[in-house]
Amino acid sequence: MALIVHKYGGTSVGNAERIRNVARRIAKWSRAGHQIVVVVSAMSGETNRLIALAKEVQPNPDPRELDVVASTGEQVTIGLLAMALKELGLKAKSYTGPQVHVLTDSAFTKARIVDIDEKKIRADLAVGTVVVVAGFQGADEHGNITTLGRGGSDTSAVALAAALKADECLIYTDVDGVYTTDPRIVPEARRLNTVTFEEMLEMASLGSKVLQIRSVEFAGKYKVKLRVLSSLTDADLPLAQEANSGTLITFEEDTQMEKAVISGIAFSRDEAKITLTRVPDRPGIAYKILGAIADANIDVDMIVQNISVEGTTDFSFTVHRNEYQKAMDVLESTVKGLIGAKQIVGDPKICKVSIVGIGMRSHVGVASLMFRTLSEEGINIQMISTSEIKTSVVVEDKYMELAVRALHKAFGLEQVPA
Amino acid sequence: MALIVHKYGGTSVGNAERIRNVARRIAKWSRAGHQIVVVVSAMSGETNRLIALAKEVQPNPDPRELDVVASTGEQVTIGLLAMALKELGLKAKSYTGPQVHVLTDSAFTKARIVDIDEKKIRADLAVGTVVVVAGFQGADEHGNITTLGRGGSDTSAVALAAALKADECLIYTDVDGVYTTDPRIVPEARRLNTVTFEEMLEMASLGSKVLQIRSVEFAGKYKVKLRVLSSLTDADLPLAQEANSGTLITFEEDTQMEKAVISGIAFSRDEAKITLTRVPDRPGIAYKILGAIADANIDVDMIVQNISVEGTTDFSFTVHRNEYQKAMDVLESTVKGLIGAKQIVGDPKICKVSIVGIGMRSHVGVASLMFRTLSEEGINIQMISTSEIKTSVVVEDKYMELAVRALHKAFGLEQVPA
Repeated sequence: MALIVHKYGGTSVGNAERIRNVARRIAKWSRAGHQIVVVVSAMSGETNRLIALAKEVQPNPDPRELDVVASTGEQVTIGLLAMALKELGLKAKSYTGPQVHVLTDSAFTKARIVDIDEKKIRADLAVGTVVVVAGFQGADEHGNITTLGRGGSDTSAVALAAALKADECLIYTDVDGVYTTDPRIVPEARRLNTVTFEEMLEMASLGSKVLQIRSVEFAGKYKVKLRVLSSLTDADLPLAQEANSGTLITFEEDTQMEKAVISGIAFSRDEAKITLTRVPDRPGIAYKILGAIADANIDVDMIVQNISVEGTTDFSFTVHRNEYQKAMDVLESTVKGLIGAKQIVGDPKICKVSIVGIGMRSHVGVASLMFRTLSEEGINIQMISTSEIKTSVVVEDKYMELAVRALHKAFGLEQVPA
Repeated sequence: MALIVHKYGGTSVGNAERIRNVARRIAKWSRAGHQIVVVVSAMSGETNRLIALAKEVQPNPDPRELDVVASTGEQVTIGLLAMALKELGLKAKSYTGPQVHVLTDSAFTKARIVDIDEKKIRADLAVGTVVVVAGFQGADEHGNITTLGRGGSDTSAVALAAALKADECLIYTDVDGVYTTDPRIVPEARRLNTVTFEEMLEMASLGSKVLQIRSVEFAGKYKVKLRVLSSLTDADLPLAQEANSGTLITFEEDTQMEKAVISGIAFSRDEAKITLTRVPDRPGIAYKILGAIADANIDVDMIVQNISVEGTTDFSFTVHRNEYQKAMDVLESTVKGLIGAKQIVGDPKICKVSIVGIGMRSHVGVASLMFRTLSEEGINIQMISTSEIKTSVVVEDKYMELAVRALHKAFGLEQVPA
């Protein structure tokens, strides 16, 4: 008997029939003797509907009140799923985040989980009850309702799995696992049976939208065994088969011994590039630039600064494309004069392509194969940034698909590693 | 400066524009220096949508889980209204029932309020914040979400007014007060400036759908000054005028000195009649019949038993039309044999018409005027039941409108009492 946390996203619970299907799947696990905690998202479209309604009332909705409104989406799902489970003859009970004391900070619309009191859940599990918990939400120390931000249900599931010391956390989703890259771009893309947390972190942050990045961080930190698998398979699939499907995200590097040099290719079109040219190369310049950007609450991704020539340097970084204009405005209005940059040039028409793999640590020549491949396709590289297990390049966005396909082939990702 | 509780029903908050209108109305009261607590219902149609969704998943929804789902309707409204108030520059904060400790019993879908901890609300009011509370909901001692049943938002408002010792509780609704009868049936029906709690109780329970009956009981018990008024007037109506509009429900009988003999005519088509014929007239018979009905959780309204003839009697009562079949089944399967009734006959095609008035206490001949009026219209009376301040008759349902119109005229209700 194991304690398993299941998580189902909005598509999986998108209507009454799908909710009944999810219930059948859970019943299979429960009847096999496992203790099951289920975390669910709002029915697909519901969160968007609620946010649109809020914006109709207040164009820039108050964050505390937006959380009050948005959190109802998941609350509807938990009630419905508990009903569906009961209809199948199971014992089931639903809880909102606040009801099981998912304690968060007070950063409305993007709160972070601080603690979970799992006692109530344990008591229910002990008597064979399937516990259904609303993802995406909690309450701060004053009892205010908070939400974790988009994709927060993954984080809720992993946090519950950590608090309960669950044997495994199964993230059911509309894809059947983590792929070497997006199969819509590279038809030969292959599902990975396992991937390490570090690789997953790089993949997630770089645009593999399978899992919310914070949930992966959480899983790594608390050593939660995480599996991404499909909610679209037959609910009556034999349990042993289902339990080994999808992609297991592990924290054991040893299982990676036989792996290929790189595990996958991530990419994103969500970024924009900004360069300040001829910046005087003095201590504190980077802080002055990025401090102003951070004060405006804009997240920066890549940062590149090259050596200086004749006392000045060019300073480049990328931000989310939605925040491009805001970042440009901040730089023009406050930073430019302050540091004496010659020019601020920006380009929202870029993309980022990254190769990711634990194997890069012990293999040389990985980056150069990447650069050679892109060069052979005539793709100019605008920025480069590297970490221990990934190399990212910024290229013109029209080359994105071409770059991803060429790299997938060059690194032989379509083949199962020996 | 007064502490006023406002309550707005589903129609008043039915879309973003109406919510903004409600906010303007509240702003008027708040800016005049009053402390305002607002109780709101779900947006019109929302509760029905949620219940339909639940029934899609589980035809007979689990009550605990149904409350989890249904309570989200009000939660959406409180967030939206708080946003609208903030958009007008007011301080505002929303709370669900559980958040302000609306403690109820555990009778899911029809819970009763046991206690309210008003400290949190008082603290907000003290700093000039408009407090927006979700009606219809609370939590039991175990923290389970409960709802008060249909129309429960009125009860929430009155209970909050009682807990806060509010100066007045204003129930804004889509009618502009309590009428002598339904103006859709009798165009001459007249709005009452005041009505006593006792009369209101009889009117509410008999089908005047202006206020939920439990809220009126609550108001009477805790001496909450209650006013029913229109939410459809211009939000910018001068406050002094708005504050005196609608119908005030008083607990002071002296203000009724000049009133007409009867205050209004109530009616209902929601009932069904059941008669057990030739029941042996022995002690305990009524209990055996109604005990079985109560065990099946069916509410009984009118009960009539006449004197016995030859050792047997006919026993009649009415139940809600929705529970008619269930009541018949209970009687056939368990009661009939037990007590030796000859026959059980039922009729769902009836209606109840009642005249209500404090003045009946001190005036004779009121009931006989009622019976004469009906007889002159050729309407046969099937059952009669009386209390101190009302007389109800059951007649065939096709006569309902005719009976109401004839009685309204006979008692001169279209004229303002001298």
